Amino acid sequence: MKKILMLTTGGTIASAPGAQGLAPRGSGEILSHLGAGFAGCEVTTREIFTLDSTNIQPEEWKVIAAAVYDGFRSFDGVVVTHGTDTMAYTASMLCFMLKNPPVPVVLTGSQVPISHPLTDAVLNLRCAFAMAESGRPGVYVAFDRKIILGCRAVKVRTTGFDAFESVNCPPAGVVNASGLCLREDLLPRSDGSPALDTTIDTGVFLLKLTPCTNPGIIDMLIDAGTRGIVIEAFGAGGIQFIRRDFVSKLERAAHERIPVVVCSQCLYESSELSIYQVGQKALEQGVIQGYDMTSEAAVTKLMWALGRTRDVSEIRRLFSQSLAGEVNIPVI
Amino acid sequence: MKKILMLTTGGTIASAPGAQGLAPRGSGEILSHLGAGFAGCEVTTREIFTLDSTNIQPEEWKVIAAAVYDGFRSFDGVVVTHGTDTMAYTASMLCFMLKNPPVPVVLTGSQVPISHPLTDAVLNLRCAFAMAESGRPGVYVAFDRKIILGCRAVKVRTTGFDAFESVNCPPAGVVNASGLCLREDLLPRSDGSPALDTTIDTGVFLLKLTPCTNPGIIDMLIDAGTRGIVIEAFGAGGIQFIRRDFVSKLERAAHERIPVVVCSQCLYESSELSIYQVGQKALEQGVIQGYDMTSEAAVTKLMWALGRTRDVSEIRRLFSQSLAGEVNIPVI
Repeated sequence: MKKILMLTTGGTIASAPGAQGLAPRGSGEILSHLGAGFAGCEVTTREIFTLDSTNIQPEEWKVIAAAVYDGFRSFDGVVVTHGTDTMAYTASMLCFMLKNPPVPVVLTGSQVPISHPLTDAVLNLRCAFAMAESGRPGVYVAFDRKIILGCRAVKVRTTGFDAFESVNCPPAGVVNASGLCLREDLLPRSDGSPALDTTIDTGVFLLKLTPCTNPGIIDMLIDAGTRGIVIEAFGAGGIQFIRRDFVSKLERAAHERIPVVVCSQCLYESSELSIYQVGQKALEQGVIQGYDMTSEAAVTKLMWALGRTRDVSEIRRLFSQSLAGEVNIPVI
Repeated sequence: MKKILMLTTGGTIASAPGAQGLAPRGSGEILSHLGAGFAGCEVTTREIFTLDSTNIQPEEWKVIAAAVYDGFRSFDGVVVTHGTDTMAYTASMLCFMLKNPPVPVVLTGSQVPISHPLTDAVLNLRCAFAMAESGRPGVYVAFDRKIILGCRAVKVRTTGFDAFESVNCPPAGVVNASGLCLREDLLPRSDGSPALDTTIDTGVFLLKLTPCTNPGIIDMLIDAGTRGIVIEAFGAGGIQFIRRDFVSKLERAAHERIPVVVCSQCLYESSELSIYQVGQKALEQGVIQGYDMTSEAAVTKLMWALGRTRDVSEIRRLFSQSLAGEVNIPVI
């Protein structure tokens, strides 16, 4: 019988009504809700903390990553229960902090507390445990019968049970009448021994452009000590340069050796700044292309890259390759 | 024969390759590409300007709105060709600037220039003209055989021809083998005479939260003279308050009478801050709920509302109602 470690962190799955609305409670009783049909593995539960995931931040990522890594010695798989709000950020960061995980690491949660009669938690947990028992290493999100690469998950719905999508990459697996069906070609390949690397730089800002964004924000961020910026640009990567001139601000960022990664604010498909003049002018200032990365993956990868080095050319090199399936670099 | 005014503003539809990638050119030849099958209306073309829509900003919105309004006197419908990158922002703002349009106002564009053999521009323009001839007043985006309420359009794909979605509201119409099929229940209802109101305040900032966002950004924005903030919060509207404490910053914004509108960074479905503690704490600081508004609609509505008044309670009142179909206020 497989041995699975279940780490709990709070979230809706473990929430209960209080004076100020739903708030997380202890997770001690989660397993009791899974019912008699769930008996496939030996589960050890460890409560790491009890937070609404809106409050889960870089400091918690380090604690979760270390607890998962610690579990690699004694368990065949790790399940992490987590609130849905920032699960995509945590999952993305675990992809970078946990190099070559030897077993599956599966995040899950729910849109309705597990104690509610109509909860989605039972289904999500059963799928998460099935994936954790699969023996296929990697960091995943299991939600609504989908297994999503951790660095491809995005929460796209506030209340629907199909809350997460696998963005710009098919799900690594689905659960259907045949059971857990995995796409072998999409599963991460391990190429060495496991390593834990939680050194990150939290001084990263995500800037989603609008037509009225004042370019002075770039000066303000640099002056305040920001070490990296991810821009959600328009369409294929357009950044305005008439009247509200961001190009000259990007020039300053380059001069001050602040890496700027450019993604698209379109949820789907890849940015490519070389197509349009409004992208090329930004490219000329040395911005780093995010291509088809999710914003969650771009922000966490930049934090992680800045934990390695402040050298912009080295950060550019890290962004020119996929470390965990987070990006497809287009072949032009 | 219906008389249609076509206003051109540049965009990919009118772009051609240059030394720095695709850049907009004059739009004089657009009609010649529509082919012999297009002969249903009398078109008058007026080139307003020639910009990549990444560079279309509040100042251009006023020019477009005035040109459309001017067309109301002599035409049965108005088509506006526009780049796709910021079309959703322009369409949203036109919904607020143009009160009670007496005829259809239809924005369209394309992902591939109209001169390219595989362009989507011909199909999009033909649909836009069909909608402009329909006699159904309102501001719409016509794209990939969908007619979308202007304030519900979001560009979700960087290269796919189905670039726009009608978010949190079905399309107002589709084009299929039956022709142009409109949903009568979703079309805007006119309740008075047409009016043009282009007074807006451009001092609005869109803040998309991440788990590492430094709450000091709120102080920086206020100190820099920002007059309104739209926050893309987590999930149903969660805003972090542990360690990185945004709640105390929202308290300052309330004290300084800066309206803060909270939407979700989830693309689909509604936020509702009263469900979770992480939303309720923000509500207690007087933030304004964006519910199921798109970020494009929230940002443009706040700019428009600030053009009316700096009184936060009056802005709250404007956000507690749908002006053009941009929001569904949940009944609790």
